[in-house]
Amino acid sequence: MKGGTLWLIPTLLAPGPPEAVVPAAVLAVTRRLSFFIAENEKTARRYLKAAGTSVPLNDLEFAVLNKHTRPEEVPALCAPLLEGRDAGLISEAGMPGIADPGAAVTAWCHQNGITVKPLTGPSSILLALTASGFNGQHFTFHGYLPIDASARKKYLKKLERSAEDEGISQIFMETPFRNDKLLNDLLHVCRPSTHLCIARDITGDTEFIKTAPLSFWKKQKPTLHKHPAIFVLGKF
Amino acid sequence: MKGGTLWLIPTLLAPGPPEAVVPAAVLAVTRRLSFFIAENEKTARRYLKAAGTSVPLNDLEFAVLNKHTRPEEVPALCAPLLEGRDAGLISEAGMPGIADPGAAVTAWCHQNGITVKPLTGPSSILLALTASGFNGQHFTFHGYLPIDASARKKYLKKLERSAEDEGISQIFMETPFRNDKLLNDLLHVCRPSTHLCIARDITGDTEFIKTAPLSFWKKQKPTLHKHPAIFVLGKF
Repeated sequence: MKGGTLWLIPTLLAPGPPEAVVPAAVLAVTRRLSFFIAENEKTARRYLKAAGTSVPLNDLEFAVLNKHTRPEEVPALCAPLLEGRDAGLISEAGMPGIADPGAAVTAWCHQNGITVKPLTGPSSILLALTASGFNGQHFTFHGYLPIDASARKKYLKKLERSAEDEGISQIFMETPFRNDKLLNDLLHVCRPSTHLCIARDITGDTEFIKTAPLSFWKKQKPTLHKHPAIFVLGKF
Repeated sequence: MKGGTLWLIPTLLAPGPPEAVVPAAVLAVTRRLSFFIAENEKTARRYLKAAGTSVPLNDLEFAVLNKHTRPEEVPALCAPLLEGRDAGLISEAGMPGIADPGAAVTAWCHQNGITVKPLTGPSSILLALTASGFNGQHFTFHGYLPIDASARKKYLKKLERSAEDEGISQIFMETPFRNDKLLNDLLHVCRPSTHLCIARDITGDTEFIKTAPLSFWKKQKPTLHKHPAIFVLGKF
């Protein structure tokens, strides 16, 4: 029996019309699917409604894959794919499989002969990098940094060295209510001449993207508390 | 005088209708711009025509930024932005500023108080990573690998170690007519159990994306010669 296809369904980064950041052909695929493996059912339902799903809302089916999902639970989530049904993988924001637990499902698909089709959508990581002006030919995304003060300090020092000495752009993030703390840590640990890009509320009405030396950020701190943001260290 | 805005204009990865991979709102911005800083004027003109530019084709203006552009030439390319004119930065394929020389212009904009607006479009790097099933919470893009045989061997060994031991996904590429050579080098240098994702012709009609151990790729080599492809080493 032929398996279904796993479609990687992008979603919004900030409130607004889906047409602003999702291609028409991607919306068309999104609208016809009835089964989703979602990081959060409630936000996925809200997005599908906004995207104009052609499936009656009561007929939408969801399996949940989040950070609490154990590896041994993945096959059951993916079972409909083996039976020939298509599935949409959808995360809390942006493209699934980046900075979320979605990769577990995609890996399972490769191991079980299921076709995986990635779809274009907004990625805060890549939008921040391209807008930063830093090296886009060599970069690393680190996700969340260590919480422990001493480990974090060491990590930030390492990122600064790699950005300054090797010219490798270093992208990272923080849970939004800890953004101010992260900026303070950067100001404390790194050199005033080191360049930092702060990209806040990307694609949203309050989007703010600026690259400047830390000496600038020390004097002019942007409002970051509870706003999604991406930080990039790099070299001009 | 208020400066213009630098718009980061995405373009196609493979032949096809722009609506398949570019959001409607991004196409709307693309259509109204008359001045572009392009990696290649000819391909940029072809794309703008396909995207349905509202500017008469003879009135489109281009400044060229490619790998031969010297840093001291950048200010002249960007001069219209200082005079209040908007500009679109556009590369040969995908999102500008990634795996191309576009960052030089964006960096100049940050240094000269020009607003930079990134726009959503297809990125072969990110589409390949999300479709690979590998770790999307920690990854590095390396661009092109060293050409020299011994340096390349050492580099591939380092990527394999980082992918296997640290679980950091390693993304890289090659000029399409050297893809077969790169796959052979991988088969020669890395362990048969190491996992490789090959993503060829992403978003095109002949898209092929599969993650498998090198032992599999040794027996079943896909057609890669002269096809754009992204390679990812990672861990399931």
